[in-house]
Amino acid sequence: MFNFPEYLFLQVGLNLTQICLPRECTEDEIIEEVLKLNQDPRVHGVYLHLPPVFLTGRVLNTVNPEKDIDGMSDLNVGRLARGDVSQSFTPPTANAVMQLLARNGELGSGVMRADAVVLLGAERMDIPPTWLRPGASVIHCGSAFLTGTTSQVFMSNNLDASSSGVGALTAVLRMQNVVQSSSRWAQQQQYRPWILRSLKLQPLSPVPRDIEISRAQTPKAIDQLAQEIGLLQEETEAYGRTKAKVRLSLLDRLREQPDGKYVLVAGITPTPLGEGKSTVTIGLVQALTAHLKLNSFACLRQPSQGPTFGVKGGAAGGGYAQVIPMEEFNLHLTGDIHAISAANNLVAAAIDARMLHEATQTDKALYSRLVPSVNGVRCFSPIQVARLRRLGINETDPSALTPQEVSSFVRLDLDPAKVTWQRVVDTNDRFLRKITVGQANTEKGHMRETQFDIAVASEIMAILALTDGLGDMKTRLGRMVVGSSRSGQPVTAEDLGVSGALAVLMKDAIKPTLMQTLEGTPVFVHAGPFANIAHGNSSVLADKLALKLVGEDGFVVTEAGFGADIGMEKFFNIKCRSSGLRPNVVVLVATVRALKMHGGGPNVSAGSPLPKEYINENLSLVAGGCSTNLKKQIEIAHLFGVPVVVALNVFKTDTQAEIDLVCRIAKESGASDAVPCHHWALGGRGSLDLAQAVKRASNQPNHFQFLYNQETPIVEKIRMIAQKVYGADDIKLSVEAQAKIDYYNQQGYGNLPICMAKTHLSLSHMPELKGVPTGFTLPIRDVRASVGAGFIYPLVGTMSTMPGLPTRPCFYDIDLDPVTEEISGLF
Amino acid sequence: MFNFPEYLFLQVGLNLTQICLPRECTEDEIIEEVLKLNQDPRVHGVYLHLPPVFLTGRVLNTVNPEKDIDGMSDLNVGRLARGDVSQSFTPPTANAVMQLLARNGELGSGVMRADAVVLLGAERMDIPPTWLRPGASVIHCGSAFLTGTTSQVFMSNNLDASSSGVGALTAVLRMQNVVQSSSRWAQQQQYRPWILRSLKLQPLSPVPRDIEISRAQTPKAIDQLAQEIGLLQEETEAYGRTKAKVRLSLLDRLREQPDGKYVLVAGITPTPLGEGKSTVTIGLVQALTAHLKLNSFACLRQPSQGPTFGVKGGAAGGGYAQVIPMEEFNLHLTGDIHAISAANNLVAAAIDARMLHEATQTDKALYSRLVPSVNGVRCFSPIQVARLRRLGINETDPSALTPQEVSSFVRLDLDPAKVTWQRVVDTNDRFLRKITVGQANTEKGHMRETQFDIAVASEIMAILALTDGLGDMKTRLGRMVVGSSRSGQPVTAEDLGVSGALAVLMKDAIKPTLMQTLEGTPVFVHAGPFANIAHGNSSVLADKLALKLVGEDGFVVTEAGFGADIGMEKFFNIKCRSSGLRPNVVVLVATVRALKMHGGGPNVSAGSPLPKEYINENLSLVAGGCSTNLKKQIEIAHLFGVPVVVALNVFKTDTQAEIDLVCRIAKESGASDAVPCHHWALGGRGSLDLAQAVKRASNQPNHFQFLYNQETPIVEKIRMIAQKVYGADDIKLSVEAQAKIDYYNQQGYGNLPICMAKTHLSLSHMPELKGVPTGFTLPIRDVRASVGAGFIYPLVGTMSTMPGLPTRPCFYDIDLDPVTEEISGLF
Repeated sequence: MFNFPEYLFLQVGLNLTQICLPRECTEDEIIEEVLKLNQDPRVHGVYLHLPPVFLTGRVLNTVNPEKDIDGMSDLNVGRLARGDVSQSFTPPTANAVMQLLARNGELGSGVMRADAVVLLGAERMDIPPTWLRPGASVIHCGSAFLTGTTSQVFMSNNLDASSSGVGALTAVLRMQNVVQSSSRWAQQQQYRPWILRSLKLQPLSPVPRDIEISRAQTPKAIDQLAQEIGLLQEETEAYGRTKAKVRLSLLDRLREQPDGKYVLVAGITPTPLGEGKSTVTIGLVQALTAHLKLNSFACLRQPSQGPTFGVKGGAAGGGYAQVIPMEEFNLHLTGDIHAISAANNLVAAAIDARMLHEATQTDKALYSRLVPSVNGVRCFSPIQVARLRRLGINETDPSALTPQEVSSFVRLDLDPAKVTWQRVVDTNDRFLRKITVGQANTEKGHMRETQFDIAVASEIMAILALTDGLGDMKTRLGRMVVGSSRSGQPVTAEDLGVSGALAVLMKDAIKPTLMQTLEGTPVFVHAGPFANIAHGNSSVLADKLALKLVGEDGFVVTEAGFGADIGMEKFFNIKCRSSGLRPNVVVLVATVRALKMHGGGPNVSAGSPLPKEYINENLSLVAGGCSTNLKKQIEIAHLFGVPVVVALNVFKTDTQAEIDLVCRIAKESGASDAVPCHHWALGGRGSLDLAQAVKRASNQPNHFQFLYNQETPIVEKIRMIAQKVYGADDIKLSVEAQAKIDYYNQQGYGNLPICMAKTHLSLSHMPELKGVPTGFTLPIRDVRASVGAGFIYPLVGTMSTMPGLPTRPCFYDIDLDPVTEEISGLF
Repeated sequence: MFNFPEYLFLQVGLNLTQICLPRECTEDEIIEEVLKLNQDPRVHGVYLHLPPVFLTGRVLNTVNPEKDIDGMSDLNVGRLARGDVSQSFTPPTANAVMQLLARNGELGSGVMRADAVVLLGAERMDIPPTWLRPGASVIHCGSAFLTGTTSQVFMSNNLDASSSGVGALTAVLRMQNVVQSSSRWAQQQQYRPWILRSLKLQPLSPVPRDIEISRAQTPKAIDQLAQEIGLLQEETEAYGRTKAKVRLSLLDRLREQPDGKYVLVAGITPTPLGEGKSTVTIGLVQALTAHLKLNSFACLRQPSQGPTFGVKGGAAGGGYAQVIPMEEFNLHLTGDIHAISAANNLVAAAIDARMLHEATQTDKALYSRLVPSVNGVRCFSPIQVARLRRLGINETDPSALTPQEVSSFVRLDLDPAKVTWQRVVDTNDRFLRKITVGQANTEKGHMRETQFDIAVASEIMAILALTDGLGDMKTRLGRMVVGSSRSGQPVTAEDLGVSGALAVLMKDAIKPTLMQTLEGTPVFVHAGPFANIAHGNSSVLADKLALKLVGEDGFVVTEAGFGADIGMEKFFNIKCRSSGLRPNVVVLVATVRALKMHGGGPNVSAGSPLPKEYINENLSLVAGGCSTNLKKQIEIAHLFGVPVVVALNVFKTDTQAEIDLVCRIAKESGASDAVPCHHWALGGRGSLDLAQAVKRASNQPNHFQFLYNQETPIVEKIRMIAQKVYGADDIKLSVEAQAKIDYYNQQGYGNLPICMAKTHLSLSHMPELKGVPTGFTLPIRDVRASVGAGFIYPLVGTMSTMPGLPTRPCFYDIDLDPVTEEISGLF
């Protein structure tokens, strides 16, 4: 429903901006507005929606005939009020207008066939071929252009055809003008190679500190970047000058656009020496877009703010392959993690408050409070009706429930010992790892032990990473299981009545954040779930948006957490399964140093000098690491049928012989290609070989397959991962793990994919075992479920979900200059 | 220092935008850029900073002579490199350039006197009168225009005067062109009555729900509003389409601009029936700006998100006097409270981690970790040097400290029982009111009792509300006392080494957020400290920015929490003392219902029907309330020498006789004026009388004075407030309170103003006593200090700093439509 206000207004074609004018405006003011619209290239049609007194000859003659879509009052549908702008009405749908045009014989006749038809709004419809010239375009522009919710093509009123002397034919001709103009404009919004102004780098040697490099580069205004990559103004929401959220309506507008190539960056098993997956990811897109002039996007995880102030280690890349401004990337960003914390902790507060209220009130008191009489009327809220349905109660009159039904409705009967939901905070606060809450007198002795996790460990983060839209996110948030009742039934966020509020808290967080690399190429930052208790990959939505934006000849490079055995396996089996996207290439990152450690090199410890094996040439250690861990990780990727390019992230101590050796063994082990990369020292220019190799590999035939079917029993799924990916002989379930699996099967969660919570420091469960461990049995200590996110996570060992602060946290060096506003000490 | 990159660029006058061009660009591309600059009205001068090969005749001739400030190479100062753009140099300061011009005899001669001089940058300087024509303007534009940090007027290089044939005289003439153009432009940025497009309201009857009213109005794009009120594009940072942060550089640009009138909205003692201070505040600015066409700004507090999901009650106003979109106002806003939570909890984590590390390590181990050897070099970080100075140690070589000095440096020796810092969360989570932390094995038994407060109770929120800039905020954050050592010394955030990190976390939160009312007039939302343990007023910075933006004929309307005895008293004695601002008018809000309760009307309870006294006319109860509480609150305002306008917020059940009675008694009690307001039902149109009354009162003579001098002893300050404001006979200090006062005096905090933590429901400490209680002694249970914020807060009774959730929190009704993205159920 449009609710036409009393005041006067003009309305503008394709992007249906309303220009509101005050009621007391003058003819001159109206003409001034019309003149502006005449000149605005984004306005393709103007119709005047004014009371008759203002429809003077001067006003009417001001509208550029090319843009005039008025004079069509005889085409009005649905009894539009003429000259009465205070009346409410439903505007005609696109279909209705088109049909009317056809009925009048003016569209669809030989002469009047359209070159192009532009449809606005969510409604899709088929245009009869007789309406169209051969080769005509039909462009569905989605609802991004609409201020209301109803679909529209063009409509008009207030100008009587007879009085203005404008006949229906003229009207349709004018309309065609607009359609053609809109068509050209809309086509410009479709895929094209970007005309992107890259930012030039002048790498210094030695390479300065990350923050200095980041600060020395002036980022483009984010709206400029957005425009360069084909985003419409309506599709972005700036957050300051260097970040913008991108609206999901883009997916609708570019629905027909083919996806680009999908590239995953994974790594060999991590060592304390580091591999640099993020820098490879960023260096690769810098090479693809700033140097090879191909459309590309990097999709990165948002880092937790906790470690930023705890122990050194940014996630914005490093050296000359960074996301800028790095301090914006590493700090609040656009508030998504804060939104997750707020949502997560609202659930926690609701749980404890509910347990207290149930423990201290009768059924009757609870019921009269949960379903209060407002002005003498009692009714269930929609979320309460949903709970009634789940309980099998179809009654909607609160007074008609039996006492038994009232009791089962008001009592979630949560077992305090079986609450699995934790509070979160985005700070490294080790003292919250185990706490007792509820010790104030007001909580009447209902204290219990619980814990805080770091915010990114929240199930809501995993949901944000896996969801494909608002509706899906709301469903997932509602089905999150927060604990079980004393009778063993799962209790969900929807049972608590909080799921709508969670969706409200997360409504902006669902939009990916656009930033840029040091060379001015686009980056999405979105979601950053844990890589052990969750799947450790950035968001499905960011990848989907990026794949549309780069178009079919472009590349989207996304990064998985930890080594390929964990992050990549979950990327395929969980993320791709959820998104329906299929990867084209895996880039496997390795360093000479890490390979030496996998080949048997000595341990290293923080603070001690690096052993000489890692500084001097040692071909046998390199060969050892390549033929064990690197080879195995390549094989894992091949299990999924995806070609692998090995990216060797070169350090200045690496010798040419070492580099050549890695590349040779990698290719012998089945990699499509293996290339040294120098992005850290040189930016995109240092990753040109990698970019070319990825481009070649993306054209190879692709036989992607999942490792297991979802319907396979839970135990079998775990065993397949353990044996085929980790190389274990078998798995061993604890009694508790087996009991949990039985429970989850009984609850109907047996079809969920598996998200292993295993150490990332070894292919096995024993972090000290490097290379390719064999002959071990993988112990499954416990099994848990993230029902909202949609996976079962077996625990192999103990996972810490709350980091601590060291004696000298890096906040000692972080400072802000109050005059220049420059930040120092951040990495 | 400017660090000229290798690539080529053009640079633009007044707003010193750099246009970067790729090194491989063509002459045509340069010309295209120049043509754009020629046409851009915001560009007042162009100088080409290009290697000689690009300085072709075609390029040089493209620059519009009006904008050409090049050709001045003979005026170069500081040995600018000619044609060599890779060299670093310090650009000449404004002073240096002006002096050079004067030396050349071309400025300051009779002919060459300037009509206007525009100075850029933070540096201020005096222009000799001989340089100027009579009546010339000298405009200091502040550093907002600078990308670097050094002051500049205009500078030039690369074009040799002799080779281009442009002499110094021509150059100066051209420069004058630019100065004149800049001057006109800069004057446009100075104060003027706003040309503000107000949004029209069509109030419905009955008044719909707040969210429906909010949703029915389409807000202006926030950048449009920003432009209308005279903000420069560079001064705002959009957060989505309806919110923008405003940069503090504005204060510098408008330094010479006179402030507008400063109006405080306060209330009578609150009752459960509500008064509506926020709606009065918003209705008043709607009346002033949308109807009387006077510049005005409302400055509001950001509400906590906890109660949004707990118990009904928004802070965005109500009815037809609201800030829109109300859901944006009530939810994350621009993340300021999230930033406060992050900063607050980083301090908390640092405290517990530090206590653990000190308890488990020797002095030597602590010292080697706190001052580690990095590449063989040990040095103190600046924040550690600051701590050494406070300890009286002037040594800067870590190896030179005595063991005693090392020990006092490394050990804060915090007494766990005397840690006063609490964690915070922006959720109503009653189970966190008292908790035990540190129960995990990793914390080795160092558990302790503590609590979480709601985020807005954090001292950092009070600091945000009182600070006047980044430097001041950083100082205040550093001096926050988090507890005391076993020897009784205060331990500060700076001692923990965390103050720089706190400033970094808060660097965006310090900028006020611009929003708009239902009628499209501007609003600042910034800070929202507790009104009992803190001072309950929105930020000093928002008020200061708004006072400059409205200009001397405009109005800034700001709201104080609770009744006038608390919020207004703190506004005067704490906020105005800190800001140096002086209020012109107090608007005192009352309702007939609340006055009836103060006049002896019966108690009301939630859920029960309202007693008939509040629905039917009852003149004696009204008279009782007026002659007690209302009269007393007017007298309190007069204590401070500020005129009072009583705003009677009219409900539909109020009779004309009741309304007339209130207005009559209010005037008899000394109010300058007393008017009924109908903004809730009618918007600004309903508050026109109030707007006129405020305008009249603001022209009255003003004799503002504080209630006490800062130097008065703490006990005396408390007594003056108790006696003069609350009407107590005397105060009674507990032993603990007296001991704390002695301690604070000894620590040098005796000069801080007083922030009473008293119930808001009565002028006394007994919430049930309405009207004007007399004959009571105010008990001071305890005294605490917020040293960073800068006040002492005596506790009168127990203050809850963590609200709870009721049995049916309002989140039950809050929902999001996934298709339209509309929120329902929010108030």
